[in-house]
Amino acid sequence: MAAKPSIPKGTRDFSPIEMAKRNYIFDTIREVYHLYGFHQIETPAMEMLSTLMGKYGDEGDKLLFKIQNSGDYFKGLTDEELLSRDAAHLASKFCEKGLRYDLTVPFARYVVMHREEITFPFKRYQIQPVWRADRPQRGRYREFYQCDADVVGSDSLLNEVELMQIVDTVFHRFGVRVCIKINNRKILSGIAEVIGEADKIVDITVAIDKLDKIGLDNVNAELRDKGVSEAAIEKLQPIILLSGTNAEKLATLKNVLAGSETGLKGIEETTFILETLDKIGLHNEIELDLTLARGLNYYTGAIFEVKALDVQIGSITGGGRYDNLTGVFGMPGVSGVGISFGADRIFDVLNQLDLYPKEAVNGTKLLFINFGEREAAYCLPILQKVRARGVSAEIFPDAVKMKKQMAYANAHEIPFVALVGENEMNEGKVTLKNMATGEQALISVEELTEQLA
Amino acid sequence: MAAKPSIPKGTRDFSPIEMAKRNYIFDTIREVYHLYGFHQIETPAMEMLSTLMGKYGDEGDKLLFKIQNSGDYFKGLTDEELLSRDAAHLASKFCEKGLRYDLTVPFARYVVMHREEITFPFKRYQIQPVWRADRPQRGRYREFYQCDADVVGSDSLLNEVELMQIVDTVFHRFGVRVCIKINNRKILSGIAEVIGEADKIVDITVAIDKLDKIGLDNVNAELRDKGVSEAAIEKLQPIILLSGTNAEKLATLKNVLAGSETGLKGIEETTFILETLDKIGLHNEIELDLTLARGLNYYTGAIFEVKALDVQIGSITGGGRYDNLTGVFGMPGVSGVGISFGADRIFDVLNQLDLYPKEAVNGTKLLFINFGEREAAYCLPILQKVRARGVSAEIFPDAVKMKKQMAYANAHEIPFVALVGENEMNEGKVTLKNMATGEQALISVEELTEQLA
Repeated sequence: MAAKPSIPKGTRDFSPIEMAKRNYIFDTIREVYHLYGFHQIETPAMEMLSTLMGKYGDEGDKLLFKIQNSGDYFKGLTDEELLSRDAAHLASKFCEKGLRYDLTVPFARYVVMHREEITFPFKRYQIQPVWRADRPQRGRYREFYQCDADVVGSDSLLNEVELMQIVDTVFHRFGVRVCIKINNRKILSGIAEVIGEADKIVDITVAIDKLDKIGLDNVNAELRDKGVSEAAIEKLQPIILLSGTNAEKLATLKNVLAGSETGLKGIEETTFILETLDKIGLHNEIELDLTLARGLNYYTGAIFEVKALDVQIGSITGGGRYDNLTGVFGMPGVSGVGISFGADRIFDVLNQLDLYPKEAVNGTKLLFINFGEREAAYCLPILQKVRARGVSAEIFPDAVKMKKQMAYANAHEIPFVALVGENEMNEGKVTLKNMATGEQALISVEELTEQLA
Repeated sequence: MAAKPSIPKGTRDFSPIEMAKRNYIFDTIREVYHLYGFHQIETPAMEMLSTLMGKYGDEGDKLLFKIQNSGDYFKGLTDEELLSRDAAHLASKFCEKGLRYDLTVPFARYVVMHREEITFPFKRYQIQPVWRADRPQRGRYREFYQCDADVVGSDSLLNEVELMQIVDTVFHRFGVRVCIKINNRKILSGIAEVIGEADKIVDITVAIDKLDKIGLDNVNAELRDKGVSEAAIEKLQPIILLSGTNAEKLATLKNVLAGSETGLKGIEETTFILETLDKIGLHNEIELDLTLARGLNYYTGAIFEVKALDVQIGSITGGGRYDNLTGVFGMPGVSGVGISFGADRIFDVLNQLDLYPKEAVNGTKLLFINFGEREAAYCLPILQKVRARGVSAEIFPDAVKMKKQMAYANAHEIPFVALVGENEMNEGKVTLKNMATGEQALISVEELTEQLA
C-alpha cells in the first residue's frame, strides 16, 4: 500500500464550501474594481530570478521559491564550486526562475514590457496567488492570494479618493464595519524635519501609538530611551496629544509643521482627500492616524490601512502612493497609488461575523431522488427545464437506498428534493419536498419551475 | 540602466482584453458546472514530488518543474554524490516539491486526504493553471489552465449523460458549433478480442481513421503492414466500413461483437448514453466514432472528444470513464468519469469566429472628462450615482488636454463620455457624448443614470 499523501507545509486545499466563500470575496472585490474602471491582468506564476532578486531585501531573497532548471543543471560548474556547498551561490547556477513573491514586482515588470500598448493612466487590478518560503504559522501561509489595484501614470489625488471609495464600498457590501486609517509620508517627514530627528520616525510613531495604554509620561520616557532629544520631545507634545476631528488634527499639525514645506504639502494632500471624501460621503469612518507608518521605505505620499471594528485582527487592507514603480527595470518616472485587500484575513472576518450571504454559499437547489431507470428517464427532461430557468439541479446518479440519497441532500444542504414514483409518472407530476419544513406537495412541472426559479 | 526584463519562455502575460475574454470562457464553464450541481475545489500549486513522480511516465517525470528546498539543500550529501553530477538523482535530494502537472493527480490526492469529509458521489470541478517543462511551441505553453469536472464514487451512466449535456450547453452558450464524438473502451477491447489482435488496437484505429482519405484497399494494406492477420482483417471489414446513424452503427457492431461479452457491454453502455441524450435533445450532434482512442491506458468505459465544426483545430474538450482514480495512493475502488475543457484552444476558436459578446469584453461605459478641480468636484457625486446603478464609470484623474483624455476613451473603447464645464454646472446638468455616433446632448443627472443603467 502506498504511503499516505500529504501537501507541502504552509499550503492548503480549499473545499467546495471554502471555495464558495472565497469566490464570494473575490467576486465582490472584482465587481467593485470594475465599477471604478479597473482592468484585470494576470502574470505567470514563474518569473525570472533576475526580475525577483534584490527587490525584497536580503530576507526576501531567501524566501523566494526557486525552480530548478530543466535538463543538466550542472553544466559549466567546476568541482570546486560544487564542493563549496555554497547554497546561495549554487542556487543561482541551478535555478533561473522563481515563484512570484508579490504582485507589485511582476506588475512593474509588466508595465515595462508592455509600455507601448498601455494607455496611461493604467488602472490595473490583479488577483493571483503568491508564494513565500516563510515559516508557516497560524494565519501565515506559503501560498496565499493577493488582490491588488493600482493606478500608475497619474499624480492626481482623485486616485487616492477613488481607492478609498473602493475600500469603503467593498466592506459595505460585505457588511463589515471598518475604520479606514489614513496618513501621509510627507507629514511624517515634516515631523522628523521639524524636531530634527529624521532617522527616528518609526520609533516615534511606535511610542505615540501607546499613548492610550501607557499615558503621556511613559510615552515621553520611551522617547527619551530611544535617544530622542528633550527639545524634540518638547516639540512633539502637541503631536502626541493630537486629538479631535480630522479637521482639528490637521489644524494643529499645520501649526506644528509651519516650518516644513514637505510637512505642509502632506497636510494639503490629506486635507484634499478627506474633504473630497466627506462631500461624497462614505459608509465607514475615515481617520487621520499619524501612527500609521507601513512601508515607509516605499511610500512617498498617502498611506492607508483598514481595521475591522468588530473583530480582533490585524490590518485587512493597506496601500499607499509611491514615486517610482519601474525605475529598477530602467523605466523612470512611473508613479502610482495602490491598495491590496487581505483575502485570507477578510475570509476569517466574514467567518467570525457569519456574514456570508446564503445565496453566495449555497450550491444545488433541487435534488431528484433516483428510484430506478424508468423514473430517472422521466426526470431528465424535467431537470432540463429547471436548469433552463437557471436553477442548479441534480439527479442522484445511482438508484440506491433513499436514506443514502437523502443523506447526500442533507450533506450538501440542498433545500428541495423531488420525488417521482409510479403515481407521479401517471399524473405527469412531481412531489416536491421542502427539506427545511418537511412539507410535501404534488405539483405540475410548470409549478415546480415557477416555484424554484 | 537595468537590463530589459523578460518572462520565462513558454509563459504569458494576459492583458486586460485577454483577461476579459478568458474570464468570459471560465465564467461560462463555471456557470454550467454549477447548474449541474458541481462544486469547485482548489489545490496548491506545489505538490510533494512523492505525489507527482511516477504518475505521468518517465517522460512526464522529466517535465515536472521542481522546486529547490529552502535552506541548506546540500545537507547529508557526500562529495561523491555531488561530483557524480547525476542530475536526476540529485534533483531528488535538492527538491521535495514540484509544480502540479495536471489537475487529476492533485484531485486523486485530495479525495484520499479528505475522504472522511466527502459525501459521495463527489461532483467536483477545478479551474487552475498547470505547469509542464515541455518544449514551447505555437499553441503549447509551459503554464496553461485546465478546467476539469469529474464525478467520482458513482458507476451510473447518468453521469456520462450529464457530462455530455454540460459539453453541449457550454458550446451552445459560446455559439460554437461542435461535433461531440463518443467511443467506448469496451467496444475497442471487444474488437481486439474478436479478431484476436488485442495489442494492435491503436494501430487499427489509426488505420480505420484514414478510410476517407486513402480508401479501403490502402487501409487493409496498412493493417497488413502493421502485422494484423488476414483472418483479422477479414473480420474487421464491417467495422472499417461502419457507417450510417449511431443506431445503425451500433446494430452492425452488435453482430460483429456477438462473441465478446466486454464488447457487448460497451455497446449496451453506448446505446444507453446515446438514446438517453436523444430523448433529452442536444443542440449539437453526437457521433459514435470508433477511431477515438485517447487515453487508452487510463479510460475503461466511455471516451469523449469534441471537435469544432467551423475552425481547423485539434480536440477542444475531452474525457472519459476510469476505474481507479486513487489506487496509487492506497484507496481502491474509486471509479469516476470526467471531462476537461481546453481553455487555450477555446480562446483561439472564439477569437477566430469573433464570438465574444460585447458586454463580456467591454469595460468602462462612461468617462467623465476632467476640466479642473471645480468641475471634477461637481462630477464626483454624479459618478457615485451612476455607479450605484451598476454602471462602470471613471473620471480622468488629471486635468490634462482634452485630446489626451479622448484618446484614453478611444483606447479603452468607452462608449460614452460626459463633459462638464461652467454651463453644465450652472444648469446642474451634464453633456453626454455618444462616442460611436458623435451625438451630444445636455441632460439631467437622472436622465444620465436612466440612459446608461
